Amino acid sequence: MTQARGRRREGGRVRRTVGGINQLPWRALENHQAPMDLLDQEALEAIHTASLEILAEVGLDFLHPEALTILKEAGADCEAGSQRVRFDPALVEELVAKAPARFRLHARNPAHNLQIGGSAMVFCSVASAPNVSDLVGGRRPGNYQDFCDLVRLMQALNIVHLFGGYPVEPQDLPPETRHLDALQALGTLSDKVFHAYSLGRTRILDALEMTRILRGIDETQLAREPSLFTVVNSSSPLRLDGPMIEGMLEMGRLGQPVVLTPFTLSGAMAPASLAGALALQNAEALGCIAFAQAANPGAPMVYGGFTSNVDMKSGAPAFGTPEYAKAVLVGGQLARRYGLPYRSSNVNASNCVDGQAAYESMMSLWPVTLAHSNMVMHAAGWLEGGLVASFEKVVLDAEMLQHMAEFLQPLPVNEEELGLEAVRDVGPGGHFFGTAHTLARYEQAFYAPIVSDWRNFETWREAGAEDATQRAHRLYKQLLADFEPPPLDPAIAEELEAFVQRRKREGGAPPL
Amino acid sequence: MTQARGRRREGGRVRRTVGGINQLPWRALENHQAPMDLLDQEALEAIHTASLEILAEVGLDFLHPEALTILKEAGADCEAGSQRVRFDPALVEELVAKAPARFRLHARNPAHNLQIGGSAMVFCSVASAPNVSDLVGGRRPGNYQDFCDLVRLMQALNIVHLFGGYPVEPQDLPPETRHLDALQALGTLSDKVFHAYSLGRTRILDALEMTRILRGIDETQLAREPSLFTVVNSSSPLRLDGPMIEGMLEMGRLGQPVVLTPFTLSGAMAPASLAGALALQNAEALGCIAFAQAANPGAPMVYGGFTSNVDMKSGAPAFGTPEYAKAVLVGGQLARRYGLPYRSSNVNASNCVDGQAAYESMMSLWPVTLAHSNMVMHAAGWLEGGLVASFEKVVLDAEMLQHMAEFLQPLPVNEEELGLEAVRDVGPGGHFFGTAHTLARYEQAFYAPIVSDWRNFETWREAGAEDATQRAHRLYKQLLADFEPPPLDPAIAEELEAFVQRRKREGGAPPL
Repeated sequence: MTQARGRRREGGRVRRTVGGINQLPWRALENHQAPMDLLDQEALEAIHTASLEILAEVGLDFLHPEALTILKEAGADCEAGSQRVRFDPALVEELVAKAPARFRLHARNPAHNLQIGGSAMVFCSVASAPNVSDLVGGRRPGNYQDFCDLVRLMQALNIVHLFGGYPVEPQDLPPETRHLDALQALGTLSDKVFHAYSLGRTRILDALEMTRILRGIDETQLAREPSLFTVVNSSSPLRLDGPMIEGMLEMGRLGQPVVLTPFTLSGAMAPASLAGALALQNAEALGCIAFAQAANPGAPMVYGGFTSNVDMKSGAPAFGTPEYAKAVLVGGQLARRYGLPYRSSNVNASNCVDGQAAYESMMSLWPVTLAHSNMVMHAAGWLEGGLVASFEKVVLDAEMLQHMAEFLQPLPVNEEELGLEAVRDVGPGGHFFGTAHTLARYEQAFYAPIVSDWRNFETWREAGAEDATQRAHRLYKQLLADFEPPPLDPAIAEELEAFVQRRKREGGAPPL
Repeated sequence: MTQARGRRREGGRVRRTVGGINQLPWRALENHQAPMDLLDQEALEAIHTASLEILAEVGLDFLHPEALTILKEAGADCEAGSQRVRFDPALVEELVAKAPARFRLHARNPAHNLQIGGSAMVFCSVASAPNVSDLVGGRRPGNYQDFCDLVRLMQALNIVHLFGGYPVEPQDLPPETRHLDALQALGTLSDKVFHAYSLGRTRILDALEMTRILRGIDETQLAREPSLFTVVNSSSPLRLDGPMIEGMLEMGRLGQPVVLTPFTLSGAMAPASLAGALALQNAEALGCIAFAQAANPGAPMVYGGFTSNVDMKSGAPAFGTPEYAKAVLVGGQLARRYGLPYRSSNVNASNCVDGQAAYESMMSLWPVTLAHSNMVMHAAGWLEGGLVASFEKVVLDAEMLQHMAEFLQPLPVNEEELGLEAVRDVGPGGHFFGTAHTLARYEQAFYAPIVSDWRNFETWREAGAEDATQRAHRLYKQLLADFEPPPLDPAIAEELEAFVQRRKREGGAPPL
C-alpha cells in the first residue's frame, strides 16, 4: 500500500477558477506507474544495433564546417571533401553517455520551473503551426494578434507547462525581426518557459539575451541554469542542416537544452516499416546527440521521437494511428536505454475539431504517458497534422491533458478510503448520497472537467445543445476576456524593450 | 525478438470491403502485452480483504427463496426470517475457485466462435439503450425497426464480435413477447453470439431453446458448448434481485455463461471513494459468483466491473473519466487474482457524437485494453451514459476498436523490417517513396481507417468539409443499404419461426 500511505496528493485537487473556468491547479506531474515496454529486450537491441550500423556504414551529413571540425577532433570518420560523417559504435555510445539524465528548466516565475527527465512529465503548447483557426473566424494564416491570444491562453491554462515554440507563426511580422517581437510577447504575456528556434546563430543569441534579461540574472547564472530550450529536427533521412547546427552549438555553449527530434515519417523520409523507421530515428537522434556532446560535453539534451507513417495511397501523413502509438512506446524504451529524457507529441490529422481530432489525440496521449514521455510537445492546440493551431482544440486538449494528469495521481487505498463504516451504515438496498463518508468528500472526491458536459439530454438541449467544440469556443473566449498578464518588474520590461528596439534598429537577424 | 520471429500476423491485414467500406477482417484478438497493474500487491490485497469483510459482516440480500436454500446448503450464514446472507471468507474463495478461467462461446456460424478469457479480447455491441439516435432522425425511443438496423450494422462490422444485449430496447413491441421477436431478429439477421436478459425463468428458457434451434444441436450439446450469455447486474449496494437469480440458475444449469457485473457508481450506490466503490464491487461480484458456483459448480462466469462515479454537484453519472480508467484497471487486477475472465466497457457521457464522446471512449478503451479485459461491453454505439444507441457512434467506435485491435498486433523486428538495405540505397537527403522496400509494402504497410479523413484541408473542404460524425452517418447508411443477411438453413429458420409463433400463442412471458 505504498501508493496510499506514503504519498500525499501533490498540489491536492483544489480548483482554481480562471476566467470563469474550473481547472486543476498548476502542478508538477509525476509518472509513478511502470513504463510500458512494447518490445522485448532482444527486439529493442536489434533496433539499437541497426541504428549503430546505419551510423557506421551510411553515416550522417552535417551541413556546417564547424560541425565537421568538431566531429573530426572527436574521432569520427569524416569523409574528405564531403559532409558525410560515419561513427564508430563505441564513439557514439561514449559521447551519448555524457548527456545528463535530467535537468531543471528555469522560468522567469520560479513557481513555473520544471524538472525534465526522470518521472516528470511536462506539457508544451502547440508549436510552429503556419495557420490558426477558430469556429467563428475560420482558418487563416498565422498572425501576431492570434499569436498573442494563443500565448495568453497557454498562460491561463495551468495544465500547459511551457511553450514548445511559437504557437502559431506570426507571418505578418517581418522575418528579420519576427523573433524579437514573438519572444518579447512570450516573455511578457507569460511567465512560463519558452523555446527559441535554431534558425542560425543570431536568433539564438538574441533569444538567450532576452531570456537572461527576463530572468534578471547574469550570463554565468544562465549558463548554470537552463532557462530556454530549442527543438532541432534532423532533416530525415540522415542530414543535419547548417542553421540547426549553429543553434545547437550556441545553446550547448551556454548549457541550454536541445531537444533532438528526427522527423522519420515511415514510407516517405523513412523506410515503410515501423522497425526501419525507428532504426533510422534512433540513428539520427544518436548521431546528432553525439555531435552535440562532442561540442559541449554534458550539455542537457532530450531524445525526441516523431515517427509516424504516411497513408500509402495518398502520401498524406497520418498521426495518432496504431503505428504512431507503437512508435511512441518504442521511442520511450530507446530513450530509457540511453538514460536520456524523452520527448514525444500529442498529434492528430483531422481537419476540424471533431471526434477524429479527439480520438487521434487520445491515441497519442495514452502511449505518450505509458512511454514515460518527459516532454510532450504540441500537447495543446495541434490540428491538421500541425498545419493549424486551433483555439478550440487548445481547450479540448487541456481537458484531455487534465484527464491524463488525474490518471497519474495515485489511487489511495487505506481504511478511510475503503469506507467499510459507510458500507455497514448503508447496508443492502440503501444509497450513499447523504452519508458522512460522502459528505466529507463532496468537494474533492472526483475529477471536475473543463469542457465535458454531463448534464442530462433534456437540460443540455434546452441550454442550447452545444457540442464540445462549441463549448470550447465559448471557454477560450472567456479565458481571453478575463486574461491578466503575469506581473513583471517594470525595470525588466524596460530593459527588454530597449534590447528589442536596439536589435530592430540593427536590422534583426539575416534571412536564412 | 520473439515478437518478430515466432508469430505471423493472425488473419493478416487483408481488407474486406463491405458496403463500400474498408475494414479489418474478422479476427480473434489476442492481447500479448503485460497487463497494467495500477495498484501494488498490498493495496490490491487491502481491497480484497475489505470485500471479504463486507461479505462476512454486512452480507448480501438474495431476493429469491431458491437462492437462500442453495446458499444455506453450501454453508453460508443465512439470517433467519430475512434474505440476508453472510459468507465466511474461506467459503467465498472456495466457491469462486470452482469457476473456469476461460471458456468458448459458440455462434451459429462457427467462424464466429469466441474464446472468453486468457489473452483473448472480444468487443460487444451497445446494449440496453432505451433510446436511439442518428443525425437525420434525431433522438427517439427505441423501436423494432432501429433495433433491426443496429443488428445489421453490428453483423456487417467485423470488429464487433458479439451482441451484449439488445442494441436498443424495441419499446414498440409488447413486453410479454418482445424477447421472442428480438431474439429471432438477432438469430436471423446475424450469425454472431448474442445475449439474453435474465428477466425471470421463462425468458431465459425461451432464449436457450431458440439458441439450440439456431445452432441445430440438441440440449446435451448445448450444455457442453456455451452458446448464449447473460449479464447479471447486482442491485448495488449488496442485493441480487429475484428475476436475475432465476436467470442465473437456468443459465448455470445448462452450462451457459453469466457475466456478473455490480453497478457500483461511486457517490451514489457505492462509497464516494474509488477504493470503497471497488471493495463494494468486489464484494458483490464475489458473493454472487459464489452463489452461482454453489448452485452449478464449474459453470462459466465472467467477473464484471462497472465502477464509475457521479458528478458530486449534480448527481449525474460520469463515464470515461480518470476515475473510471483507474477502476477498470483495478477490476482487471482483481479478476486476474481470482483467475476469472474480466468484463469492462467502452463508455462516455456525451449528449452527442462529438469530441467528448470520442475522448471519453478512448479514456475507457485504453485502460480496458491495458487491464486485459476479455469482454468489452458497449464497445460500439453507446452514448449518453447508455441512454442512447447512436448509429454514428457505432461507426466511430468501430474505428476506435480497430485502432486498439491494430495496436495489439505485434510489431515485427527482423532484418527485412529493419530495412538497412533501403537506408543504404536511399542515403542522406533522399526519400523512400519509390524504393523496392516501400513498393513491397505498399498495400499492407499501415492501418487504413474507416472514418478518419487524412486528406489535406483544401481537398477535404472542397469535398464538403464533413466532420467525423457526418462521415459516420454516410457510412452507416451505406452499410445498411448493402446489407445481406448471413445464410441460414431454411429448415432452421422455419423451426425457429414455429417456436416463436407457438410461444406467442401461449402469451409469451409474464410481465415482471
